[in-house]
Amino acid sequence: MSMELEVVPAGLARVLEELPLVDHHVHGATSHDLSRTAFEELLGESDRPVPDWMTRFDSQLGFAVLRHCAPVLGLEPFCPPEEYLARRARIGAHEANRLLLGASGVGHFLVETGYRAEELLGPSGMAEASGAPADEVVRLESVAEQLAAAGCGAGEFGRRFAEALWERTGDARGLKTVAAYRCGLDFDPAPPSADEVAAAAGRWLEEGGRLRDPVLVRHLIWTGLERGLPLQFHIGYGDPDIDLKRSDPLLLRGLIELAEPTGVPLLLLHCYPFQRHAGYLAQAYPAVFFDVGLALTHVGARGSALLAESLEVAPFAKILYSSDAWGPAELHHLGALLWRRGMARVLGEFVLEEEWSVAQAVRVATMIGAENARRVYGLGG
Amino acid sequence: MSMELEVVPAGLARVLEELPLVDHHVHGATSHDLSRTAFEELLGESDRPVPDWMTRFDSQLGFAVLRHCAPVLGLEPFCPPEEYLARRARIGAHEANRLLLGASGVGHFLVETGYRAEELLGPSGMAEASGAPADEVVRLESVAEQLAAAGCGAGEFGRRFAEALWERTGDARGLKTVAAYRCGLDFDPAPPSADEVAAAAGRWLEEGGRLRDPVLVRHLIWTGLERGLPLQFHIGYGDPDIDLKRSDPLLLRGLIELAEPTGVPLLLLHCYPFQRHAGYLAQAYPAVFFDVGLALTHVGARGSALLAESLEVAPFAKILYSSDAWGPAELHHLGALLWRRGMARVLGEFVLEEEWSVAQAVRVATMIGAENARRVYGLGG
Amino acid sequence: MSMELEVVPAGLARVLEELPLVDHHVHGATSHDLSRTAFEELLGESDRPVPDWMTRFDSQLGFAVLRHCAPVLGLEPFCPPEEYLARRARIGAHEANRLLLGASGVGHFLVETGYRAEELLGPSGMAEASGAPADEVVRLESVAEQLAAAGCGAGEFGRRFAEALWERTGDARGLKTVAAYRCGLDFDPAPPSADEVAAAAGRWLEEGGRLRDPVLVRHLIWTGLERGLPLQFHIGYGDPDIDLKRSDPLLLRGLIELAEPTGVPLLLLHCYPFQRHAGYLAQAYPAVFFDVGLALTHVGARGSALLAESLEVAPFAKILYSSDAWGPAELHHLGALLWRRGMARVLGEFVLEEEWSVAQAVRVATMIGAENARRVYGLGG
Repeated sequence: MSMELEVVPAGLARVLEELPLVDHHVHGATSHDLSRTAFEELLGESDRPVPDWMTRFDSQLGFAVLRHCAPVLGLEPFCPPEEYLARRARIGAHEANRLLLGASGVGHFLVETGYRAEELLGPSGMAEASGAPADEVVRLESVAEQLAAAGCGAGEFGRRFAEALWERTGDARGLKTVAAYRCGLDFDPAPPSADEVAAAAGRWLEEGGRLRDPVLVRHLIWTGLERGLPLQFHIGYGDPDIDLKRSDPLLLRGLIELAEPTGVPLLLLHCYPFQRHAGYLAQAYPAVFFDVGLALTHVGARGSALLAESLEVAPFAKILYSSDAWGPAELHHLGALLWRRGMARVLGEFVLEEEWSVAQAVRVATMIGAENARRVYGLGG
Repeated sequence: MSMELEVVPAGLARVLEELPLVDHHVHGATSHDLSRTAFEELLGESDRPVPDWMTRFDSQLGFAVLRHCAPVLGLEPFCPPEEYLARRARIGAHEANRLLLGASGVGHFLVETGYRAEELLGPSGMAEASGAPADEVVRLESVAEQLAAAGCGAGEFGRRFAEALWERTGDARGLKTVAAYRCGLDFDPAPPSADEVAAAAGRWLEEGGRLRDPVLVRHLIWTGLERGLPLQFHIGYGDPDIDLKRSDPLLLRGLIELAEPTGVPLLLLHCYPFQRHAGYLAQAYPAVFFDVGLALTHVGARGSALLAESLEVAPFAKILYSSDAWGPAELHHLGALLWRRGMARVLGEFVLEEEWSVAQAVRVATMIGAENARRVYGLGG
Repeated sequence: MSMELEVVPAGLARVLEELPLVDHHVHGATSHDLSRTAFEELLGESDRPVPDWMTRFDSQLGFAVLRHCAPVLGLEPFCPPEEYLARRARIGAHEANRLLLGASGVGHFLVETGYRAEELLGPSGMAEASGAPADEVVRLESVAEQLAAAGCGAGEFGRRFAEALWERTGDARGLKTVAAYRCGLDFDPAPPSADEVAAAAGRWLEEGGRLRDPVLVRHLIWTGLERGLPLQFHIGYGDPDIDLKRSDPLLLRGLIELAEPTGVPLLLLHCYPFQRHAGYLAQAYPAVFFDVGLALTHVGARGSALLAESLEVAPFAKILYSSDAWGPAELHHLGALLWRRGMARVLGEFVLEEEWSVAQAVRVATMIGAENARRVYGLGG
């Protein structure tokens, strides 16, 4: 920890610095070199080209890269973007990944493989580059789309999706749904009937394209609940494909209540700017967990404010860590580093204000950073 | 005030420490001893059993109990939950209530008696245990349900509810509605016709159960407005029976505008996480007031952040204090204590930053902690 | 900068103190003297009379006037309201305007003239009183209402509105819409057909009153997009005429996407309490910009918290400064002063925490305070 954090009690600072985090929702690091344009386009969630009158380095995330990743690559903090990118190009993607993933201090990755996986390291590549174990989280919509691509009749879609899911997830630690992107979270929460599924599958298989039909999305989710692995939901902040107001986690209340008898853990990812809504749900329903991943990286210097808002009504056993990094290993490193620094500031302040003891702060840091995920996903350790 | 608050100007700290608060919305303290399970279930709003892999002591509220209530019972701060509960059991509920209610420094309780009142001290019991006066706030829905239980025809329901309300509220200081729980706040704001009320009453009296029909809820509210006592609304944070997104106070705009000619004060309770929405309404409409009770207790060390968000656009004459404590007297004590500490931090920071004078800070603390409620409810003093 | 800000790095403090801001959305200062009642009614957005049991001086905005404007008029900070108003009356509106507008240090005003302009200084009056250039922003709805008042047939409304808009905006720097007030932002985003416009115009021209029909509002917006000047949207916080929940900027997603091919900058004004929603949109869509004007003035000592929330996911090239002052020149001064002080605190803290360099902080302050607006509106300099 650097000097400005010296008010953080030493015991807490050390635990936060050294804790082997479980990154319970992450994608692979990019396996190839990135041009400036490609790199910059990944410093943000927008899929629009960066206008020529601006650079995404002028953002909290861009500043965090120059502040915190430059030293990992052997440069001074706050170096110019050009210097950073030149250095990165010189050492190459492989070495950059090794340095940045190693510096993250993550002890276990749960890698979601459902989005443009061919450009990224898979779980085994992540394990090799980082030296930490990596397991897989399978995206429901990708399994269905692969089934459609391989050829499937409408009437058999329901059955064959279940078969494909069981087969695909033999070693998986969890499932993920991007219902928020595909149809918004304001869908009818009840499981659809077999007839409804067949009819919707018929329309989709004929039209092609991404799976967006709410009936099919619901079918995937309910089949996922039967599969029984912890189920992750994309919530809130993401690329412009999302209608943010329809990704409010409060919209999931009906599904959460219907799913309660299954006992399947439901993990609300990212949640920004609805982190308080997610905390409320985690407080109300035993099966609900949440994190503030992705946004934590993107808000940079505001990370401690965001983490503080996640530490309100939810019991501490219901909060997890994730980076949701995708692509540049800078994002994997910053997710972990900003979590460590932000938690040190927030918990350190609780201690300084004599609201918490140091022992309580250490306990909560360990729960959120690793123990809760180990329990939910059965990771041992 | 403890040492970490020494930056708070002494004059402000003393006022906040000693101010006899008006807790304008509170329930009774539990009159009987509580098992660990029972106690822990009341450390949170969820009505679900606590899973065996967690304890609700691992929460902001749980930590606040160990930090701030343990010393009131003669224990060290941050003692283990087991030690705290053993001590509480040893001295008994009666003594725990006396110590904790006394330590709260509340000068006047307005006790809402409409929810499981048989397990709790009533207004006179609260007055006796605390040494402070206690008056009653009557829940509209409970009066209607008692009427139904006593027997009432559909056609006479409208008239008899009004009679029962007038009779029940002879000494009451205010009314309360839980419309947010029963049908959500997105109801048609206009008063229903007598025919609509009779028809809805007919359906409800035949089916039984809790009063949930929006027509009847509206009838209760409009009858309450005729009664003319200050009318409290549950808003936001509560148990899982609530659909949080339908408890946003902005949904009350139509009713607030229709009710303006009555001049009845409308008090938005709790409001988390919609406290800024409530502040906006309090700024816009002379009759609207609000507090951040309940949530303030549950967010523990984050209390000052929550209070700070309540001090934005609303005039200071429109903000009140409440604990919304229900059950363990720890909640009554913590509501008051976290308000005092949180306000000291927030207002002390305004002074330190040279944005406010000490005199202004003292004035605002006194208004919000006591004077505004005394004026709205006509408490004198 | 005063002493409490001494932790702010000197280089950053000086830049923030001296920066000639571009106030990209402001109204004129009141040209005449104001009674206590008139002055106090302008310390807030509510159009309701101030109840006799309160004063709007007891608010963040009222406190900020006494703290920061009193010294500009030669009084001690925190003087009583009576003393402040007496002094203001003695020197007269003309001198008060000169002192307060001069003290704001604004380098360029973009004056929106569409609301009760007859009571206010126009752009030339603002330039004269402040010594800084002032250009005009034209409100679409006002142009349409003037056309209706002058007489216009339903069938020719579409064409004649376009003619009037082009004629009225020859020298204008931007356009403004108050769709949020008139029909809420949940309107169909597509441009209406000529027949729909003629039919809606027929109804409106017969009924009279303000232009509220969503078809006509959409027509104004789409004609404004054709005109091609930067287009400002009222978002969020405002007087009770607004239904706040229908002014959430996330409701504009459809329009933003349909308008992307035009390349017209869309500027979301105020945004409180939806500033994070606005930041998300500014991050996602190249054409979207936003500010936290109006609210910044009204939250007074909480200004730094509000500014901090605006500095999360949006790139720094997408954030602007405005006061949205209307009437008393205190509001013009406070907008600028609270922005300077708030930014010094927030950016100073980022530097102190070693997350940002001083050079980065200076760069971002300059971008948000002036450069971004100069680029968007083509102001040169």
